[in-house]
Amino acid sequence: MLEVKTPEEVLRLIEKVFYPADRSETVSLAEALGRVLAEDVSAEEYVPDFDRSTVDGYALHAKDTFGCSDAIPAILNLAGEVKMGEGAAVRVPRDACAYVPTGGAIPEGCDCAVMIEYTEDYGDGTIGILKPGVPGMNLIFRGDDVFPGKTVLCASRVLAPQDIGALAAIGKTQVSVRPRLRVGVISTGYELVPVDRKPGPGQVRDVNSPMLTALLKEFGAEPVDFGIVVDDEKLLREKTLDAAENCDAVILSGGSSAGVKDAACRIIGELGELLLHGIAIKPGKPTILGRAGNKPLIGLPGHPVAAFFVAKLFVLPLLARLEGRTLRSWPVRAELSESLNANHGRMQMNACRLAEEDGKLTAVPIRSKSGLITQLAGADGYLMIDRDCEGLPKNSEVEIYWQ
Amino acid sequence: MLEVKTPEEVLRLIEKVFYPADRSETVSLAEALGRVLAEDVSAEEYVPDFDRSTVDGYALHAKDTFGCSDAIPAILNLAGEVKMGEGAAVRVPRDACAYVPTGGAIPEGCDCAVMIEYTEDYGDGTIGILKPGVPGMNLIFRGDDVFPGKTVLCASRVLAPQDIGALAAIGKTQVSVRPRLRVGVISTGYELVPVDRKPGPGQVRDVNSPMLTALLKEFGAEPVDFGIVVDDEKLLREKTLDAAENCDAVILSGGSSAGVKDAACRIIGELGELLLHGIAIKPGKPTILGRAGNKPLIGLPGHPVAAFFVAKLFVLPLLARLEGRTLRSWPVRAELSESLNANHGRMQMNACRLAEEDGKLTAVPIRSKSGLITQLAGADGYLMIDRDCEGLPKNSEVEIYWQ
Repeated sequence: MLEVKTPEEVLRLIEKVFYPADRSETVSLAEALGRVLAEDVSAEEYVPDFDRSTVDGYALHAKDTFGCSDAIPAILNLAGEVKMGEGAAVRVPRDACAYVPTGGAIPEGCDCAVMIEYTEDYGDGTIGILKPGVPGMNLIFRGDDVFPGKTVLCASRVLAPQDIGALAAIGKTQVSVRPRLRVGVISTGYELVPVDRKPGPGQVRDVNSPMLTALLKEFGAEPVDFGIVVDDEKLLREKTLDAAENCDAVILSGGSSAGVKDAACRIIGELGELLLHGIAIKPGKPTILGRAGNKPLIGLPGHPVAAFFVAKLFVLPLLARLEGRTLRSWPVRAELSESLNANHGRMQMNACRLAEEDGKLTAVPIRSKSGLITQLAGADGYLMIDRDCEGLPKNSEVEIYWQ
Repeated sequence: MLEVKTPEEVLRLIEKVFYPADRSETVSLAEALGRVLAEDVSAEEYVPDFDRSTVDGYALHAKDTFGCSDAIPAILNLAGEVKMGEGAAVRVPRDACAYVPTGGAIPEGCDCAVMIEYTEDYGDGTIGILKPGVPGMNLIFRGDDVFPGKTVLCASRVLAPQDIGALAAIGKTQVSVRPRLRVGVISTGYELVPVDRKPGPGQVRDVNSPMLTALLKEFGAEPVDFGIVVDDEKLLREKTLDAAENCDAVILSGGSSAGVKDAACRIIGELGELLLHGIAIKPGKPTILGRAGNKPLIGLPGHPVAAFFVAKLFVLPLLARLEGRTLRSWPVRAELSESLNANHGRMQMNACRLAEEDGKLTAVPIRSKSGLITQLAGADGYLMIDRDCEGLPKNSEVEIYWQ
């Protein structure tokens, strides 16, 4: 018999038993948002590939302007103009300057740009410089942003819009990413009917399949819906085998009765190895975890709220582990609007709404009986109360996980 | 001439000038994740539609067990068993009980369930109850979760996985949501080449189009890429008009030279009304905002980093306003790893990485020259330094926006 494990033990078990699969596929830059980088990305070019001005002004040799001022301008010959999108063809000898727009190329030999606000065009082919240039002033040098061999993004990063921008800058039109994980979702329970059917006496709708499917999509996995299986061990074994063969991970949910839980344990044991039976959290205790090779086989509680918390806290980190994905999520601090009791030796999860007033964030816990999905509807996040904590007083500072 | 506005003034202007369009479309529940609810959703049924047990145990009349204990059990006749997914057909007279699994229907007249752990099956058709029942104990009553007319989710909510679960529970297979906003993206600049082309002398790749497209996708809008327009006022006018006719909002980006900025202002003025020229933030000052009716026409700075921050801080709230979307995002608190200077009368944005050690979160600012896109690559979030603040010392507590 496996012992009930603490959340920390479960996360350590996941790190120990599962490992990132070394797989990749190539997608176009337009499809790369939200995907997990399979390898480091290095630049192959200089960006920018030329020295650029960061201002509208005049490119010049700084030493020609040393000592100048409003009162005693340096007077330089206007050698020409740099046009946007063209190389700096204009030659700028000593004691001369060239007009250059923001982002324009700096002519060879020039070592700074003076903003147009600090110059005066005398209209006779000469320009007065009212403020001395300093070498490097208002310039971005060739390769200042990136140069060949520079690592721009590291493997395991989930690509954000700013990363798409960086990849565009270095001309990466194709990106090597992790294939989306295929995750089989099976709901079990005699009492379940699909969402589009009206429940008869003693029946309820299957909430977990659509909820888990949405959670997996949001995470960036590819859910595969295997539908509802009634609590029949043979059928459940067949479906689970089918899912395990065709997916990277399998989630069974429901089957709240003891018999079905035992059946799920037996099936997972037959397909591979049972690793875990029970997590010391509330709600969410009746959770099962096993594996067939590196494929996780997960048995979630039937109660939607419990299934939701276990999926957030353990299933997503487990899927991230399979991808070698860097999971980044941090709680926000808020003030608890009312006291919350907890006294049961298990870490307690509680959904809450967040309210902001005058820059102060308040967490309003949503109270409801166990298993009521409306506890989650409209929730902004959740808090965790430590197993050793007997409750939180009103106005205490809490950490809210909201992503 | 319009004055430069502070960030707060810009956000107030957005709220004042633009309004949510009263539009909706119907999507299936499977497509509803991340969409914006167009109206409140109320239940039409009871969930659950019957009194349910929350434990494996015996349904009974509480008063038949008052005063019982381990030493003096209440002995009840076993009237039958409730099966999952079936109504509670079994009749339970006084001084009797029926086995009921977790989630099973409670037979009529019974008012509580006693956990199987506190009972003993004598094998002769009687069950010993070792702990008194209390009316309502271990029950979820009909309609405890929802009842006809109860509002389950409010309009403007961006549907999260837990909301999909709640909609499934009440049988909503179709959801009324806001149509995705079509946002035209136009890049301007003679110096720009598409990502798949190698820049020639004086040229750089168009970073803003793919970056803004990704940002809009992540937000849940539908970007429409109008490509690169060279700095030609006539062409730019045609493209902008085309985009304004076919989209709900238009973003022009780039055109860093003064001439193009003036052209963008003229074009926006011709199409509608120019509302704003310049925001007191760094980077991001050269931002233009106008409108044609309720359609925003936005001119973003050409520097990708500036364009990114302005898009995050102002364009997304503006799009949310057009949808009546509730934008929910809160910063996390972290300790600054090194001092940061700021002294220029504008709010300063700085990208940073977040590092976690022993539960302590540290923000490491990413330093780079203006306009370098690699400042953003791999960034976890950003912080804002107030316009009146001259800098932040090392180890100061900062708020990091990371979503």
